[in-house]
Parts: sequence; C-alpha cells; structure tokens
Amino acid sequence: MSVEQFACPAPLRPTETVLLGHGSGGVLSRDLLQRVFLPGLGGAAPSSLDDAAVLTAGGQRLALTTDSHVVSPLFFPGGDIGRLAVCGTVNDLAMVGAQPLALTCGFILEEGLPFEILRRVLASMQAAAQEAGVRIVAGDTKVVQRGGTDQLFINSSGLGVVAEGVRIFGANAQLGDTVIISGTIGDHGIAVLAAREQLGFETRLASDVAPLNHLVAAMLTAGEVHVLRDPTRGGLATSLVEIAEQSQVVIELEEERLPFKPAVKAACELLGFDPLYVANEGKLVALVKAEDVDAVLAAMRRTKYGEDAVIIGKVTSTGKAQVRLCTAIGGTRLVDMLPGELLPRIC
Amino acid sequence: MSVEQFACPAPLRPTETVLLGHGSGGVLSRDLLQRVFLPGLGGAAPSSLDDAAVLTAGGQRLALTTDSHVVSPLFFPGGDIGRLAVCGTVNDLAMVGAQPLALTCGFILEEGLPFEILRRVLASMQAAAQEAGVRIVAGDTKVVQRGGTDQLFINSSGLGVVAEGVRIFGANAQLGDTVIISGTIGDHGIAVLAAREQLGFETRLASDVAPLNHLVAAMLTAGEVHVLRDPTRGGLATSLVEIAEQSQVVIELEEERLPFKPAVKAACELLGFDPLYVANEGKLVALVKAEDVDAVLAAMRRTKYGEDAVIIGKVTSTGKAQVRLCTAIGGTRLVDMLPGELLPRIC
Repeated sequence: MSVEQFACPAPLRPTETVLLGHGSGGVLSRDLLQRVFLPGLGGAAPSSLDDAAVLTAGGQRLALTTDSHVVSPLFFPGGDIGRLAVCGTVNDLAMVGAQPLALTCGFILEEGLPFEILRRVLASMQAAAQEAGVRIVAGDTKVVQRGGTDQLFINSSGLGVVAEGVRIFGANAQLGDTVIISGTIGDHGIAVLAAREQLGFETRLASDVAPLNHLVAAMLTAGEVHVLRDPTRGGLATSLVEIAEQSQVVIELEEERLPFKPAVKAACELLGFDPLYVANEGKLVALVKAEDVDAVLAAMRRTKYGEDAVIIGKVTSTGKAQVRLCTAIGGTRLVDMLPGELLPRIC
Repeated sequence: MSVEQFACPAPLRPTETVLLGHGSGGVLSRDLLQRVFLPGLGGAAPSSLDDAAVLTAGGQRLALTTDSHVVSPLFFPGGDIGRLAVCGTVNDLAMVGAQPLALTCGFILEEGLPFEILRRVLASMQAAAQEAGVRIVAGDTKVVQRGGTDQLFINSSGLGVVAEGVRIFGANAQLGDTVIISGTIGDHGIAVLAAREQLGFETRLASDVAPLNHLVAAMLTAGEVHVLRDPTRGGLATSLVEIAEQSQVVIELEEERLPFKPAVKAACELLGFDPLYVANEGKLVALVKAEDVDAVLAAMRRTKYGEDAVIIGKVTSTGKAQVRLCTAIGGTRLVDMLPGELLPRIC
C-alpha cells in the first residue's frame, strides 16, 4: 500500500455537541466550520479560509479580521493575553499582505478580577501596539459574575490596508514555489504548556509572540510572495495542509531543515507531541516565487523576527492537495491536519 | 438648596477589583475606563466616547466598532444573543452616521454546548445581517472547558462607511437642538429580566432588538442630525448624560412625553427600577437641528423601527453639562448616570 492510500482506520465520529477539539484549529475546527458555521451563516459567510477577509471600499482594498483570546494562564514566559491579542490580530492582517490601520478590543471580565492584572495586560497591549505601529481605536467591556467566565477574555479585531499589486491568499500557491519558515517552530505552545504549573514541567523557553507586519513589509519589497500564514492553532502542519487544499498543490517538506529549539524538541519527545502541530504566535510560513527566494530570505533575515528564516520545502506538483514530509532516513510520510486537540486554550 | 447643588452624600468608593457594576455602562463603567483602560492604553486609546471610532483611510471616512455579548439567557422574547450581536454592532456604526459595510464575529463556546443552540443563534445572526444589509466576512471560534465560561459569548465588530458631509458625534449637540426618541423605552431590559425564570416574573413584552441603520439613513436624508446614540446599557438617562458632558450642554426632558409600554411601566414599578436606566437595543435618541425636526420625525415614522418616534426634550443652554427632567407635577429633577448595576448581563 502506497503512502497515498493510507486512511485513518478510526475516524472521529461527528458529534452534536462542542468538544475542546473544536477549538484546536485542526480537523474538528474545520468540521464545526463546515457543518455548523458556514451553513448557518449561509450567504453571509466568509467564502475563503484566509486569516483575514479582503474587501473593497471606495476603490481601496481593506482587510478585516477578528480573534478571541482565552489563553490560560494569562501570563506566560515571553508574553501574556494582551500581547497575544494585539499580535494575533496584527498578524492575521499581515498574512493577507495588509498593513494594520486600527484595532478594536473587547474585554470580558470576571467579577473580582484585580485591576492590577488588567493594568499589566493593558500595558502589554500598548507596548505591542506601539511595536506594530497600530492604534487601538475602540473598545468594549462586559463583566460576568464570578464563575461565569475565567478571569479575562479579549477579542481583538483589526482593520488593515492592502497595497495595490499585493495578491496574497491561500489559494495562490504556485508550482515551484519555495516554502520558507521565519524561525523556530513550536515555541509558543510549549512555553504556555510549561507555564501551566500543574504539569510539573519547567523550561526557560519563551513564547515567540510578536507582531510580524514589519517582517511582511520587508518581504513584499524584496520579491513576489504568493501565500503567507501564521501557524498558530494546529501548528505548521495544519497551516500547510490548509494551503495545499486551498491551492490544490503538493507541498514537500524536508524534515532535516525544520528548525526547532532544543527545549521544544526535548519537551515534545517527553510529552509525545509532534512539534509540527504545536502553536506558534510569532512565526510565518511563506510560499515565495522560486526566482525571488534569495532576495526575500535576505530581507527577512535583516528584520528582528525573521533572523532565523530558512527554506523548508517547495511546491512540487499541482492538481491534488497533499503535504509530504521527506524524513531524514529517506522515507516520506503524509502530513495531515491536527485531528483532535493537543493543548486547549493556547491562545 | 437648588437642584444644581445636590451631590450624592455617599459616593461609591473606588475599588481595585472588578465589580458587576463595572459592566453597567454607567458611573462605574466610566470609572473603569478613566482609571484603568485609558491610562493603560495611553496614546493608543480612543480619544472620544462615541459608539464607534471614525478614521480616514485613502480619503474615505471609515467607522470601526466592537462589542462583546454575554447576555443571559441566550434566548429571550423578541431576540437572542445572535440578533443582539449583529444589531448592537450595526447600531454602533449607525450612531456615528455610518452605513455598515462588513461585520466580523468571534465566538467563545463552552465545551458541551449543543450544536443545536449554535445553529439557532447563527440563523438569527444571518436573518439580522440580511435585514441590515450587511455581510459577516470573518469569524473566529475558541472553545473553553466546561465551567470555564457560560455557554456562549459572541464578539461582533463592524466596519462602516461615513458618507461625505455627515458629522454626527457626541460633542456635536447645539443650542436649540430637539431631542427625539425613536420609540418606547426600556423594552429590552425588562424582556430579558422576565426571561430569567428564577425571578418568577412574567410578561408578554418582547425585546426591541433591531438594526437601526435604515432608520438612520432615512433621517440623514430628511434633515441635519447632530448627535445619535442607542441607549443600551445604562439606558436613556446615561446616554443623555454622556452627550451633555461631551457637548457641555443642558438637556431638558419632559417626563410626560417619555414613551413607555404599560408592561414596562408596571414591571419597573413592581421592581423599583427607573425605566430611564433600563437598556434598549432597538431605539435611538437623536439631537436634531430644531428647524429640521418635523421633516426628520416624519421620515422616522415612515420606517419600521421609527413608527413611534416622538420629541422628548431640547437643548436649553450651553457651557455646562446637565440633564434635567421636567416632571408632570411641575418640578425638575437632575438626571445622572446609572450609579451601579441595575441588571447584569443584559447584552
């Protein structure tokens, strides 16, 4: 039996209630989207699966996106829910090639939350917004009785402007495109996991949570970028499978080129995680026109969040959706979306 | 002692933890905004207190707003959390004179939520979006473990376009302006309250939750509108106090002209509520140039959600912020913001 014919012998049965896995960003999230959200919202629904919607108003292309954040714990090495909210939304805009123009933030607070926690989160949001060069222009606060919610949730939505000539979307991968990752994989997921002290697990690893709009701007001036995605929930594997499906292409990754921090590798081995499915919050994967890849890579490496950018694979054929991992020992395995839930409440 | 010199003998002490009243839309909400959010977000903060932020991009004025919804119960007579989310955001855009262009929605789901509930909410969102003529272009879903949240929260953010020449904002009230309310006051708050069965309280009253953008469009073609606000949390009283403060004007209301449904009046008497502080979700208060008021009122009454529009007061002087209620027996009382919390989780 060839690797193409392989199918999971025990597929998950469709459920009729919400499971933690429906928030994973993987197969169950897609199932919820396809069985409930898209039919439910009918014609009003987003037609694409990109990180932000692009619409035209007054001859100008605008990007609009939204993200709720329920990360637990609120503070973790390298970041907190506030930095995550700002960066997550800035990055969703950046992934369609938009420069962020304005953010909004909606807070759901649990009765009894100390102002001190809120102040720390807001300071972190402000710092992240300044780093990204974006303003928070509107907000909203709701309070829920003690026990009705968990401390603090933040929704951040964002508006961006897509420059003329920029065409970046998931269905735009092309034969021969080179796949670049902007740095090491899995840092955020493992850092948040380590911060959940009940797991009795420690590391000095910090989350990579960062705004990537300046990195993207540098890439766009250097060459032709076809697809961008920030591999958050579901990790790099899920992002690449989505791109392969949207563009109907085969993407081949070279396992030896995938960059991991030793602490992430060690934690994943210890816990039985595949780092390809662990969330990132300050990384992007890019599909770039092969002729431009040297220039784009050089431009990335000159920026703060692209220093460790490397080539990890390429688009080898079209007409079918597949992600293959060429392993160090010469084998090939198919990469699928995250099937269930690896780490709940990672963002 | 004149009514102007009256001051509350027992002001609420500033707290350092979040209270339910911080979500009321009244005095405590403002306290949280002024002591925590605005300093915390520093220069990145919204400078105005209007329902939506207005910004310029490519020579075009855009409105951006956000709202989280935590209403309990999820379904109530006349509406549900989905209709509330769409209408709330459409209305916030309409209150700065913007026509809605696109909405985003972020869902926070509790593990175990039946899909059936989600489907009903989505159908209701779609119907409301179609009624308003707006598309939902982007979404996000997070799942929180059982007990970590209460069934379902929805954030809705919206983008709108402000037509040239439209200048509607809270600081724009002018001497002589006529104050109009688009219909009866307090329906939403009392309907939600009645739906909370543990209160053992019943009425046939339905929430007024509705999209007001078509009503606003009709008003704008009929005359000069200076200020619009939808009196949601904190009710009509709080909205008018905010406008009086932003514009530094005195607004006089005539108590006899305030329109209430008999069921709302009865419920408020029974429960000791002042209906001026009860939330509305399908009403607007407008400050209109006196010369244009007949035309505006006629235009309102021709629309579905403006049939019962009436004049309730006027701007009688400038240079000081005050809302006065001229009572039926010839007295005058000062109207202040909602001090604490009347009904938590009303929206």
